[in-house]
Amino acid sequence: MRSRVYLDWNATTPLRDEARAAMVAAMDVVGNPSSVHAEGRAARALMERARAQVAAAVGCKPAEVVFTSGATEAAAVLGRLPVGRVEVEPTAHDCLWAQRRTGEGVRALGWGYANNETGVIAEPPARDDGAALMLDIVQAVGKVPFSFAWSGAEMAVVSAHKFGGPKGVGALIVRDGFDVAPALMGGGQEMGRRAGTENIIGIAGMGAAAEAAQRDLAAGRWEEVGELRNILESALSSGANNTISVGNGGLRLPNTLCLIAPGWKGETQVMAMDLAGFAVSAGSACSSGKVRASRVLLAMGFDEVQAAQAIRVSLGPGVTKEEVLRFADVWCAQYRKALSRAA
Amino acid sequence: MRSRVYLDWNATTPLRDEARAAMVAAMDVVGNPSSVHAEGRAARALMERARAQVAAAVGCKPAEVVFTSGATEAAAVLGRLPVGRVEVEPTAHDCLWAQRRTGEGVRALGWGYANNETGVIAEPPARDDGAALMLDIVQAVGKVPFSFAWSGAEMAVVSAHKFGGPKGVGALIVRDGFDVAPALMGGGQEMGRRAGTENIIGIAGMGAAAEAAQRDLAAGRWEEVGELRNILESALSSGANNTISVGNGGLRLPNTLCLIAPGWKGETQVMAMDLAGFAVSAGSACSSGKVRASRVLLAMGFDEVQAAQAIRVSLGPGVTKEEVLRFADVWCAQYRKALSRAA
Repeated sequence: MRSRVYLDWNATTPLRDEARAAMVAAMDVVGNPSSVHAEGRAARALMERARAQVAAAVGCKPAEVVFTSGATEAAAVLGRLPVGRVEVEPTAHDCLWAQRRTGEGVRALGWGYANNETGVIAEPPARDDGAALMLDIVQAVGKVPFSFAWSGAEMAVVSAHKFGGPKGVGALIVRDGFDVAPALMGGGQEMGRRAGTENIIGIAGMGAAAEAAQRDLAAGRWEEVGELRNILESALSSGANNTISVGNGGLRLPNTLCLIAPGWKGETQVMAMDLAGFAVSAGSACSSGKVRASRVLLAMGFDEVQAAQAIRVSLGPGVTKEEVLRFADVWCAQYRKALSRAA
Repeated sequence: MRSRVYLDWNATTPLRDEARAAMVAAMDVVGNPSSVHAEGRAARALMERARAQVAAAVGCKPAEVVFTSGATEAAAVLGRLPVGRVEVEPTAHDCLWAQRRTGEGVRALGWGYANNETGVIAEPPARDDGAALMLDIVQAVGKVPFSFAWSGAEMAVVSAHKFGGPKGVGALIVRDGFDVAPALMGGGQEMGRRAGTENIIGIAGMGAAAEAAQRDLAAGRWEEVGELRNILESALSSGANNTISVGNGGLRLPNTLCLIAPGWKGETQVMAMDLAGFAVSAGSACSSGKVRASRVLLAMGFDEVQAAQAIRVSLGPGVTKEEVLRFADVWCAQYRKALSRAA
């Protein structure tokens, strides 16, 4: 029995062994991938291998992958499009949300494909006005089948640390022939689409993680995760029958459970469960620490009180049934205690 | 005798053992530093340790260090300052150069403190107009003594991979109380000064490298490097007496030699020396591949032909006298061959 149980995979995932090995190997590659000498070419080869691995996992061409420092940097490209206005759907992640812009003329659309707080998967609406579409597929990659080529989107944003890669590296996927202005300017790296010396070690880790994630997905490992999530959901609902399981019944990521527990604040839940040895979150990690109700839950029609009483439990391969049931037991007991204190 | 000799330290440096060890250790830290649970706090603690290490090496307060994906991202903040115009000195790196903006009113100034192509160190001019100053200290950190606190600058940009840390991580140094608009927006990381989940493994490596670099500098290891550079410079000048050693005589980084070889193109020199087992560069790595004369050398008063005949040889600790002398022998022989072919 492990002393800590990590159930916050949507915030970040443990580094995969494959990513670790690739990163340690990349540490021996000395060159700058922009250098023309042998050392530089070796670094570039390593990066191009990772590009092909990411492309295969995302369902796009290698040339459509632009490595960035993460999804946030990739999303910034949406705000720089030469369009009249940028619309973002209301449950989108903050990094897309920050790109909204009002105005007249052609629009661009930012869309969260799978929500990090609720796991809800929402197909983007049909576009008949020529709007460019950027999809946030950060939470989808590796967890559910997805193909950029089939999505019809012009752009997508990806983050390595959500599928077993390192934090601080990601990619902007840009459809072949679609022009974007780089979020970072300076040197001519990434074919002029992103300046700055590339995070070679991180990129190697991202590539290896993408390949391993794709293999796990094909092997059905996330269906097992989905079964555990359902077991957890049943256990929590039967132990505390007035909870609301957000998004239950619709299309959801297999690993995510967003639960509203009337009378028990989300932040308090997180702290109580942390003390009991479980890592979960209230809202997204990026906005934690800020005392405010989840924009996502408000946009879904929940009120401020409900939105402040939600926690997110997110699983991943390797989490066991015993851990999930133990979490349910402890959580139900703590909830009863919290309600009796409040009564 | 090593089969390859790496003499392109200004493009990027080999990863230090200290950085490697810190990065491998950081791979076991699961949490997102924005998460409030134990795993998140462990990641945050690791990041704050690195922040203190970088601050000590740069001579600033830890709270003045904002981690970024590198100097390019950090430099983008210059372009976002709410000023009338942004002036950049003409030998500055492309990442500063890209931030120029014309207009009226208060100005901001971008300044390359130590040039990556020539090693020339240039103190910024006095400012009596309230202009905000951003210093590019990428090449200076760890090679020459520098203190941000004493520099008088409002901002500085730093890159880990120039002092033995990993590529793709750097910092913006911002004077306490000076407001900047983040280059990346989204989540509230880095106290609102830079959104995006932090590159924890890279940041750990940057911190360890900064500490080790500071120790090496204090131990006089770069004075030894400077002696080797001078030996190399003498050997090349005596072997080919019409060369121009750029910046010789003024204040220069101890490791950098920028040499103009009349009648021999820089790109050809790089390829010839690469085949002979030596990694050097023509101009900065970021702009290599582009066929154009160095903006830096043109700004220094050299003509197009001269600027296209320059190579940069940049050394680091661990390079030996034997390697440097071997380089000089091979280079002089190749130069004679090139001149006789041209004759």
